[in-house]
Amino acid sequence: MCQLLGMNCNVPTDICFSFEGFSARGGKTDEHRDGWGIAFFEGLGCRIFLDPKPSVISPIADLVKCYPIHSTHVIAHIRKATQGKIALENCHPFCRELWGRYWVFAHNGNLVDFDFKSAGFYKPVGNTDSERAFCSILETLRQRFPDGKPPLEQLYLVLKEITESLAEKGVFNYLLSDGEHFFTYCSTKLSYIVRQAPFAAAHLVDEDVTVDFQELTTPSDRVAVIATIPLTDNEVWTQIKPGELLVFQDGLPLKF
Amino acid sequence: MCQLLGMNCNVPTDICFSFEGFSARGGKTDEHRDGWGIAFFEGLGCRIFLDPKPSVISPIADLVKCYPIHSTHVIAHIRKATQGKIALENCHPFCRELWGRYWVFAHNGNLVDFDFKSAGFYKPVGNTDSERAFCSILETLRQRFPDGKPPLEQLYLVLKEITESLAEKGVFNYLLSDGEHFFTYCSTKLSYIVRQAPFAAAHLVDEDVTVDFQELTTPSDRVAVIATIPLTDNEVWTQIKPGELLVFQDGLPLKF
Repeated sequence: MCQLLGMNCNVPTDICFSFEGFSARGGKTDEHRDGWGIAFFEGLGCRIFLDPKPSVISPIADLVKCYPIHSTHVIAHIRKATQGKIALENCHPFCRELWGRYWVFAHNGNLVDFDFKSAGFYKPVGNTDSERAFCSILETLRQRFPDGKPPLEQLYLVLKEITESLAEKGVFNYLLSDGEHFFTYCSTKLSYIVRQAPFAAAHLVDEDVTVDFQELTTPSDRVAVIATIPLTDNEVWTQIKPGELLVFQDGLPLKF
Repeated sequence: MCQLLGMNCNVPTDICFSFEGFSARGGKTDEHRDGWGIAFFEGLGCRIFLDPKPSVISPIADLVKCYPIHSTHVIAHIRKATQGKIALENCHPFCRELWGRYWVFAHNGNLVDFDFKSAGFYKPVGNTDSERAFCSILETLRQRFPDGKPPLEQLYLVLKEITESLAEKGVFNYLLSDGEHFFTYCSTKLSYIVRQAPFAAAHLVDEDVTVDFQELTTPSDRVAVIATIPLTDNEVWTQIKPGELLVFQDGLPLKF
């Protein structure tokens, strides 16, 4: 399978610390060697770095670790191929435009016997179950809301319905965002932590690195980090319940 | 306006040499400081590096100069903003999926009073004339060929028709590719060179750098480089005629 990393904040924040630990799992502390990717929303724009190489030997991952890109919505993925060969077109996150915004998606899991019949809007380029699931989600949203992005409550209900139908096919943990809202679905395994004042020091599980967030933040900052497996060993992470679809905004999960 | 750089080859080739000269025009030897981007097709996959910073001070441009990504279809752009603020969402190249392939587009020019009414497929995310033109091209192709990518001759004729209609609105030099075909349209200024055996040394205009391609190639390699302004000062570049739409494949312009 794969691993997911997400970040949602109330002010643009860099993900260098979390990504350093996460990317070590792409061949050093774990076995997810079949490519990786990371998407950063900056306003309406979105940039995605992809590499079919393992993240531990990828020069692009080195850049992402060292070059602080400030973003409010970040989605990253390291891959252990289940469906689809090791190739650039099968690296997550995937991106498509819907309602005049970029939508970005990364998946951890495996959907068995899932065949997506495009109604004409979105077609997969690669051959993963993940990209098919993403196309299926966007296609349904587009058909249900042809005039544009609906209010969040309506969007949430339809997304939950599509997600539950897809989750019947297998393991389906995912991160999905359009740079405004940040959706996380836990099918089997996904945790998050919200960091806010009073900030403290955090120590990575995968590398012997500590950051004291008190030195780097202002009292009003709030950052949610979402990951398949917690990234730090001295903080309390919350496990998302299987079957739960959360929406993060400004670094907090919204209540529905 | 902006500047364009493209490459099309018969075997995957890196663009480090050409990009070194080209990126110097983003703030050092020329004034295109309002962001830059580069897209690499690798098989069906495509990865795009974007930065709203000038290419001469962009750490991502440094990576692209030094890290040889081998690709057969490359599109790069440095921006001098005419329409649309300096922002990530307005950096070229733009990317959308059509017929199950990624399509990538970069534009040099300025379309005046060009308003694109989406029929429902593609919507611009940023606010440049360039992204509107790209959406307009893909929307028309999709409507004319709803069942998939047509044979090249049919595609060429329709693309030429759309292009000529858009070119009536202003300056419209562009590069467009889906990783299979590589289209270049010259409205006012665009040149190319085909490098093939016997290979020789080439010297950049913008940096004092020489590469002897004979040492880096095999006799069957063929590489076409397309640029707004020739990148080398010791080779003969061919100016594309205004109004001409070329299709490159395997490093050669096809005849129609």
